[in-house]
Amino acid sequence: MKVSEIGEFGLIKLLAHEIEKRGNSGTGKSHVIAGIGDDAALWICDDSVQIATTDILIQDIHFDLNFTRWEEIGHKAIAVNLSDIAAMGGTPLYALVSLAIPGYIEVESILSAYHGMLEMANQFSVIIIGGNIAASEKVIINITALGSLNNETALMRSTAKPGDYIAITGYTGISAAGLWMMKEKQCFNPETESIFRKAHLQPYPRIAEGKILRELGVKTAIDISDGLLADLSHICDASRVKAIVNKDLVPVHPLLKSCFPEDKYIQFILTGGEDYELLFTATESIIEQVKERISCPVTIIGEITGGVPGQVDVVDNAHKTTRFKSTGWDHFSHE
Amino acid sequence: MKVSEIGEFGLIKLLAHEIEKRGNSGTGKSHVIAGIGDDAALWICDDSVQIATTDILIQDIHFDLNFTRWEEIGHKAIAVNLSDIAAMGGTPLYALVSLAIPGYIEVESILSAYHGMLEMANQFSVIIIGGNIAASEKVIINITALGSLNNETALMRSTAKPGDYIAITGYTGISAAGLWMMKEKQCFNPETESIFRKAHLQPYPRIAEGKILRELGVKTAIDISDGLLADLSHICDASRVKAIVNKDLVPVHPLLKSCFPEDKYIQFILTGGEDYELLFTATESIIEQVKERISCPVTIIGEITGGVPGQVDVVDNAHKTTRFKSTGWDHFSHE
Repeated sequence: MKVSEIGEFGLIKLLAHEIEKRGNSGTGKSHVIAGIGDDAALWICDDSVQIATTDILIQDIHFDLNFTRWEEIGHKAIAVNLSDIAAMGGTPLYALVSLAIPGYIEVESILSAYHGMLEMANQFSVIIIGGNIAASEKVIINITALGSLNNETALMRSTAKPGDYIAITGYTGISAAGLWMMKEKQCFNPETESIFRKAHLQPYPRIAEGKILRELGVKTAIDISDGLLADLSHICDASRVKAIVNKDLVPVHPLLKSCFPEDKYIQFILTGGEDYELLFTATESIIEQVKERISCPVTIIGEITGGVPGQVDVVDNAHKTTRFKSTGWDHFSHE
Repeated sequence: MKVSEIGEFGLIKLLAHEIEKRGNSGTGKSHVIAGIGDDAALWICDDSVQIATTDILIQDIHFDLNFTRWEEIGHKAIAVNLSDIAAMGGTPLYALVSLAIPGYIEVESILSAYHGMLEMANQFSVIIIGGNIAASEKVIINITALGSLNNETALMRSTAKPGDYIAITGYTGISAAGLWMMKEKQCFNPETESIFRKAHLQPYPRIAEGKILRELGVKTAIDISDGLLADLSHICDASRVKAIVNKDLVPVHPLLKSCFPEDKYIQFILTGGEDYELLFTATESIIEQVKERISCPVTIIGEITGGVPGQVDVVDNAHKTTRFKSTGWDHFSHE
């Protein structure tokens, strides 16, 4: 069977199973708290919980040099990793940069990519402690971010319970609109173009928000990278629960409403991906407290129920169920 | 200026300088002990020193699927990272695997790569705690290895002193012979072929040896990945010293002597690279103790002197100085 047939998430499950089978899994070993299957890995070092995550950006898969500036690539490479630490409620501390580039690239371009990385890293007091440089045909940036949770309990994917409400920070779909705009060479007014572009190329990791969620007793969170419905299904998979999302409750950014027809923006907000907002579940009273503490919008969009584990139903205000062709990003379904 | 003109090590220096300039460097911050410029990064977590390193293998740059088995790729991906931890005298604990692959690859092949990784990881009690999967045109494996030094002082590149002797574990050049054999489709007897192949594709990280060096008071080490002379020049650069290597003292594996003419095997042992042996400097009496404790051969090959920082002179038994065209591997000088 080919990787494209089993898909990204099928392959991850298979590999996690193989690691378990070969006696390598951290499960049951006292120092490892969370291995493969969450936003980041957790283990105990001396007296505190450590976090590690890794993510890769590859030219022509994750970015296009024809419409992406080097600073933006650097910014995004760091941001998407910090977002995984945000989704655990942790504090990022260090980053390792593994860079592979063709020899014909200008040194100035690499410096610009590093400026993007450093701006993002400095903003969150993250130190770039090391890395590696290799030659390749395409530009590849693999970042590993390391962080700490001190003695706190991480936000996990596996802790959602029937009765929990589902909420998100900020807006989804703007990043997907930005990608679509650049790929299709669509024009909007300059301010709108800048917002769409920034949402896609300079996402903001919700580090402060992740910590507040954890402090207020939220147990379950994920960052929205694959798409709202896809990431919600990751929570449902890991927690062995079902979710019902009311699409009429999902907040729509005014610019999406004014620039796109309804069927298009609904697709963007539910399945767009790369939003790097936090999707979390908790009781209504905890979510109310979150709303008071967090400066960005926090919106309840549905609830967790019993039922087929991993299933996500989408309904509207009239309780009509809607079907979506694709729930979000799978690296191997877009080839 | 293009990256190929400044070279791998020129670019690393430039980026380290840029990181320093933008106030991101760990230097002077109490928790970071070693940032960019050594085999791995070091920082203090609670009461112990932690180690992190990252390295990438890219299809057609670092391996050729025409003559490399998937198990071997997995083995090597883990081994080269553990070797960086060995070069600091540390204990590896965890690994993160960032995998990018084309969708047409067989799932069976990816499982085989993981079998290679897991065999190596299990051998050193390293747990694969996480990772990431993406699509790409070529197979890319980026590993981040994490480890610990407890409260011990790491082996560094920057601590060599005039008067130190230079020593290596094992033999160099066999890996380069293996790569040459496979690339040039050369035949030897099956046992020889197997040894050459294994040296190149299944290197053995000198974890136990690195710890013994540290315990016996060695302060300076590097693992030989770029080539004996190149890696020695990295030590000399970082320590601001000069080195003199007597090429007649560098041990030659009997198979290299029997399979290749002298000019070829001398080139292999001095500049071949990817040996993953440890190159270290210490007093003669410490090296004598190392020889007693380590089961593999340990050979003194030269000494550290004052002089032009970073310079490596190669002499023979008759004290004649030899020049080498290339001292070892620079990713951008081989394009």
